[in-house]
Amino acid sequence: MSFVYGKNIKISIFGQSHSDAIGVSIDGLPSGFPIDFDKLSGFMRRRMPGQGLHTTKRREADEPEFLSGLVNGVTCGAPLTAIIRNTDMRSSDYEQLRDIPRPSHADYTSYVKYGETRDIRGGGAFSGRLTAPLCVAGGICLQLLRREGITIAAHIAQIAQVTDRAFDPVNIGEAEINILEQAAFPVLDANTGGQMLDAVEQARCDGDSLGGIIECAVIGVPAGIGDPMFDGMENRLASVIFAVPAVKGIEFGNGFAASELRGSENNDDFIIKNGSVQTKTNHHGGILGGITSGMPVLFRVAFKATPSISKEQQSISLSQKEKVLLNITGRHDPCIVPRAVPCVEAAAAIAFYDALLEPKRKI
Amino acid sequence: MSFVYGKNIKISIFGQSHSDAIGVSIDGLPSGFPIDFDKLSGFMRRRMPGQGLHTTKRREADEPEFLSGLVNGVTCGAPLTAIIRNTDMRSSDYEQLRDIPRPSHADYTSYVKYGETRDIRGGGAFSGRLTAPLCVAGGICLQLLRREGITIAAHIAQIAQVTDRAFDPVNIGEAEINILEQAAFPVLDANTGGQMLDAVEQARCDGDSLGGIIECAVIGVPAGIGDPMFDGMENRLASVIFAVPAVKGIEFGNGFAASELRGSENNDDFIIKNGSVQTKTNHHGGILGGITSGMPVLFRVAFKATPSISKEQQSISLSQKEKVLLNITGRHDPCIVPRAVPCVEAAAAIAFYDALLEPKRKI
Amino acid sequence: MSFVYGKNIKISIFGQSHSDAIGVSIDGLPSGFPIDFDKLSGFMRRRMPGQGLHTTKRREADEPEFLSGLVNGVTCGAPLTAIIRNTDMRSSDYEQLRDIPRPSHADYTSYVKYGETRDIRGGGAFSGRLTAPLCVAGGICLQLLRREGITIAAHIAQIAQVTDRAFDPVNIGEAEINILEQAAFPVLDANTGGQMLDAVEQARCDGDSLGGIIECAVIGVPAGIGDPMFDGMENRLASVIFAVPAVKGIEFGNGFAASELRGSENNDDFIIKNGSVQTKTNHHGGILGGITSGMPVLFRVAFKATPSISKEQQSISLSQKEKVLLNITGRHDPCIVPRAVPCVEAAAAIAFYDALLEPKRKI
Amino acid sequence: MSFVYGKNIKISIFGQSHSDAIGVSIDGLPSGFPIDFDKLSGFMRRRMPGQGLHTTKRREADEPEFLSGLVNGVTCGAPLTAIIRNTDMRSSDYEQLRDIPRPSHADYTSYVKYGETRDIRGGGAFSGRLTAPLCVAGGICLQLLRREGITIAAHIAQIAQVTDRAFDPVNIGEAEINILEQAAFPVLDANTGGQMLDAVEQARCDGDSLGGIIECAVIGVPAGIGDPMFDGMENRLASVIFAVPAVKGIEFGNGFAASELRGSENNDDFIIKNGSVQTKTNHHGGILGGITSGMPVLFRVAFKATPSISKEQQSISLSQKEKVLLNITGRHDPCIVPRAVPCVEAAAAIAFYDALLEPKRKI
Repeated sequence: MSFVYGKNIKISIFGQSHSDAIGVSIDGLPSGFPIDFDKLSGFMRRRMPGQGLHTTKRREADEPEFLSGLVNGVTCGAPLTAIIRNTDMRSSDYEQLRDIPRPSHADYTSYVKYGETRDIRGGGAFSGRLTAPLCVAGGICLQLLRREGITIAAHIAQIAQVTDRAFDPVNIGEAEINILEQAAFPVLDANTGGQMLDAVEQARCDGDSLGGIIECAVIGVPAGIGDPMFDGMENRLASVIFAVPAVKGIEFGNGFAASELRGSENNDDFIIKNGSVQTKTNHHGGILGGITSGMPVLFRVAFKATPSISKEQQSISLSQKEKVLLNITGRHDPCIVPRAVPCVEAAAAIAFYDALLEPKRKI
Repeated sequence: MSFVYGKNIKISIFGQSHSDAIGVSIDGLPSGFPIDFDKLSGFMRRRMPGQGLHTTKRREADEPEFLSGLVNGVTCGAPLTAIIRNTDMRSSDYEQLRDIPRPSHADYTSYVKYGETRDIRGGGAFSGRLTAPLCVAGGICLQLLRREGITIAAHIAQIAQVTDRAFDPVNIGEAEINILEQAAFPVLDANTGGQMLDAVEQARCDGDSLGGIIECAVIGVPAGIGDPMFDGMENRLASVIFAVPAVKGIEFGNGFAASELRGSENNDDFIIKNGSVQTKTNHHGGILGGITSGMPVLFRVAFKATPSISKEQQSISLSQKEKVLLNITGRHDPCIVPRAVPCVEAAAAIAFYDALLEPKRKI
Repeated sequence: MSFVYGKNIKISIFGQSHSDAIGVSIDGLPSGFPIDFDKLSGFMRRRMPGQGLHTTKRREADEPEFLSGLVNGVTCGAPLTAIIRNTDMRSSDYEQLRDIPRPSHADYTSYVKYGETRDIRGGGAFSGRLTAPLCVAGGICLQLLRREGITIAAHIAQIAQVTDRAFDPVNIGEAEINILEQAAFPVLDANTGGQMLDAVEQARCDGDSLGGIIECAVIGVPAGIGDPMFDGMENRLASVIFAVPAVKGIEFGNGFAASELRGSENNDDFIIKNGSVQTKTNHHGGILGGITSGMPVLFRVAFKATPSISKEQQSISLSQKEKVLLNITGRHDPCIVPRAVPCVEAAAAIAFYDALLEPKRKI
Repeated sequence: MSFVYGKNIKISIFGQSHSDAIGVSIDGLPSGFPIDFDKLSGFMRRRMPGQGLHTTKRREADEPEFLSGLVNGVTCGAPLTAIIRNTDMRSSDYEQLRDIPRPSHADYTSYVKYGETRDIRGGGAFSGRLTAPLCVAGGICLQLLRREGITIAAHIAQIAQVTDRAFDPVNIGEAEINILEQAAFPVLDANTGGQMLDAVEQARCDGDSLGGIIECAVIGVPAGIGDPMFDGMENRLASVIFAVPAVKGIEFGNGFAASELRGSENNDDFIIKNGSVQTKTNHHGGILGGITSGMPVLFRVAFKATPSISKEQQSISLSQKEKVLLNITGRHDPCIVPRAVPCVEAAAAIAFYDALLEPKRKI
């Protein structure tokens, strides 16, 4: 159940970190859409490992092979399926983990859920590697949304204590978006990027890891997308965003900070601007009553530090029910936040494209 | 679509603030469950308006009438349906809002979505009043969960700048839970409760409103509830929690604060305690890889200040496309956070009960 | 789960034969649709009991009370909920059935599924009475479809051995449709109607019951409705039609008879007629590959004879595990087929309206 | 949407007749199940083309390659994905069909639905070839059901006018089932098999095709599987069965014949046999009120004759809007019914396994 998302499109993700392949099948894409494969590759590359000191050393081409749903690169209406072969795997790295769960990983909970026969290699289906097919699906949705004038862009708002400047909530420029799309390290203020990289490098040297916050903007969204109650855009976005490993929180507009503001401070007055209805400020983050207001949709996603660290940790032996000291070897990101940026964009694109297809609810 | 939730039970909510009735139909409840109606009434009373200075003056009995699904107070397997008649409505209060959307309410977005014929009276289906049927459903789920040893309790963690102490993440006492269940104003530290009420009263006098944060704990949850990827407990909880009006954020365990911690600080070592697997700390908030770890599930929900304030605000006329000054009359909560506490519990109960019914995923 | 239908609208049915009320909540209706309540009442009346010798003597007004979803009779976008109070119930008629399941009713299977606490009175949620809310939902969908130029009409194709003439598969006149809509006893050939009534009366006198076949036509359907594989129009229609009690089969176009024809006999040549693509014949029943072809959609539904008969039957005592002779008293239709005609239309309307809202699948 | 089935498991089918591969991803399989690959291959072979005169000459190994969901041949809880490469394709055979729809195929309706860019080669996603992944999923469900004591077996009940004997509705022997599983041509009465083959060969010589009926039995089903209203076993089975191309009807138990019987003839008396509740006869086909009664589930599926025939047919040019005479070349089954037998079993297995996982609905 849990690997299938969507109501108006169905995105079925499959694979494990060390299975023969990972992939995705997308049912419900419109026929006649020419996928820009170069653009998709560029997007996929943004989450690729092995690009710098701050990422895992495992290297993979991660080029999706398309098995169905296309005729000459154009969607044909049948489910589009893409797979990515897993190569460069060192499964032996993980053998000891069968009995000794890594702290703050899913090793123990997956053991309870799926038993001895779960795939422990590389985290199995709980691996961040599964965000690759999510990005294939999201990358295609991004292209479909762009066709409707909707653009999604995210940046690293914070790593450890270093914070980037935030998007201007009422006015996000196309230029800014383009810079983020091309950036090796997506921040709005280039200086903070350097400091973040320093912090990550420091953590790596310490055998430790860092978390952070990603801020995401969806611009060009017409008013009226999303639905009340259980299908609000917040509900929809959260449903997909929490599929990205290590996410621990999500907030919209002013979010948690809104709880300290008074109504008179947090309310956004309506105005007429260029003949259209807008709000003067955008504390609401572009969503009211679950439905987009036409203002930029803004949300922030909290990531915990990668639980894989080189430092010795305390765990237990599941079979012996006794204390064990654990030293994790293998290759790990000291901070997955930079690579998570396209994942957040992909997740948002999936949620928005699915919501966009919702039937019109007025005569 | 959007008023129906659940996979293993289906909860269909209906009604508008000023329709003849609001209600809920719950499909999938097990046959043979004797509902404790007194307990359910007590639970409903916790979200009732008209209990003090900090709530709206609208008074309603809000006693659900059960139309189906029961034989002599015991569930029979057929969908259980309960309605609550709407009385004490003053629809005329809302006539001007047809053309002038209230800032930070859903008046404008619902207009875009549903057009002129939307129900504007009292916010229509976007009203907080719809949380009453949510609480009927949640109140029943709470009773079903309690039967499985699972208890849910929430408290006001913060209103404006006043903060209550947090739950002890590894050890939440039954006594503490019972106090919250009975409390007129649910806080862990009674002193902070008084300060919060003062702050609310002050805001009311100023014609203004306040937001806040609710912390919720789910205890007695066995390890293994929830599913990977799109059906993790975080995804599931967020899906329902964002159905509660005014919610702007959710975080699990350390949440946003986790982004500033290193892995070595945020990881939770596994230990054997009383013969069972536990974690020494609970920064993860009881969920790893979307699946419960057996530790208390802890999450925090951010509420914005009630957008209805008496202060003059700026809005527009939708028909004239021109600026209008808006003075909202009628009865409004200066702070809905206290009344939202049972709503958060109800939402969590619904998400957990649905997840609990998920088929076993191992042979 | 099982009382909720639909993807683009959600229809939640509730109630039992002898609960306080039965009803339906419909989520996803477009805002701004003025329901023709007279027409809906007329439609509901066609399934009403107590209209003649061939139906049960239980009399009920069956006028739905609308609780939500409307403002001044016009849909407002919120879920539309209608309830029908149950009156004129004689629950004592059913007490013996708690232990002695009636042959070919759901008494035994509901006992296995829901246990002792199931509602046995009048068949509980398995009663044909639940088709009343189905008809409320279907009646509204019929009005919405009519607005799109789509009309649904059914007639009694057969009762016992008496057969009505079939619809002309390629040319079904508006006049014919109108006659069926008004008819007390919906047949195309009035003579066969009399013979059918005679057969029913004879069965009633014998303390026995009859089954039959209903043929249903959907006209004015544009080509392109329905989806491949699991969401074909046949799959969709069958999903709803089998919700009507006593249905034992469904066939499309030539149906079972097609199995005896050769391809050259059963294929429908394409032609251009009045500038549009049509087929010369309509053996396919208006659906190819799950998708409508633009020709009338034609299907037939088989109903078994009402299992409630006055004749003595053999059953068992569930508690004593021994043979029992059973004499069913109470009021029962000797043939539910005439009353099932609007139910089939309602079911078809629900399936078609839901399919019609499916997003466009081409750029 | 339409290529994903299931509530408790999700089966996502993908591919087109001439895409690089076809396949299926199954989410929700229990961890720890050792798939019997030999048995699965044997099952797949039963739907394979190229086995005799009555089938298409296209030959394919059709051995699924498993990409995910397994560790050493045992399910691990992650989605199981299998693909089958398409080889031996002659796409040029289909070029003329882009403009000239074949009678009674989905060429025209898929054109309306998906436009010019639909995949016309070999019927695209509407091809019977997509039943191969359906059989992979179904074959695995069959093994899972067998573990629960449930067996599914089907035979050719009729081809053209030749009819096989029917299953004994109350007593279907294990021996009979085993014979069908091994049979090259699955009939209960071997003599009728020969006559059927003769009829098929005759049709082939005439450049024509034949339809038929498949009868399917599900034995060992405990009472209580399936749900009321929209999720009855009939609804569930029909939902999947109509995914098999060329199916035009389905009936349960006495089915259409029941419409001619009186209640006293069609009702099945309850009896106690070997200490358990059974029915003396099984006109109801093992399902009452949507729920299994513990008797064998019996249903029949009508297949139209393969629409691909060599005889000249009349069609149109979509571009020129004019009459065209069409001669279909290429390789085609004169009768797909024999190959459809495992497909019906697979479809039934999927519907039953999904229903079996439904949560218990009593305390």
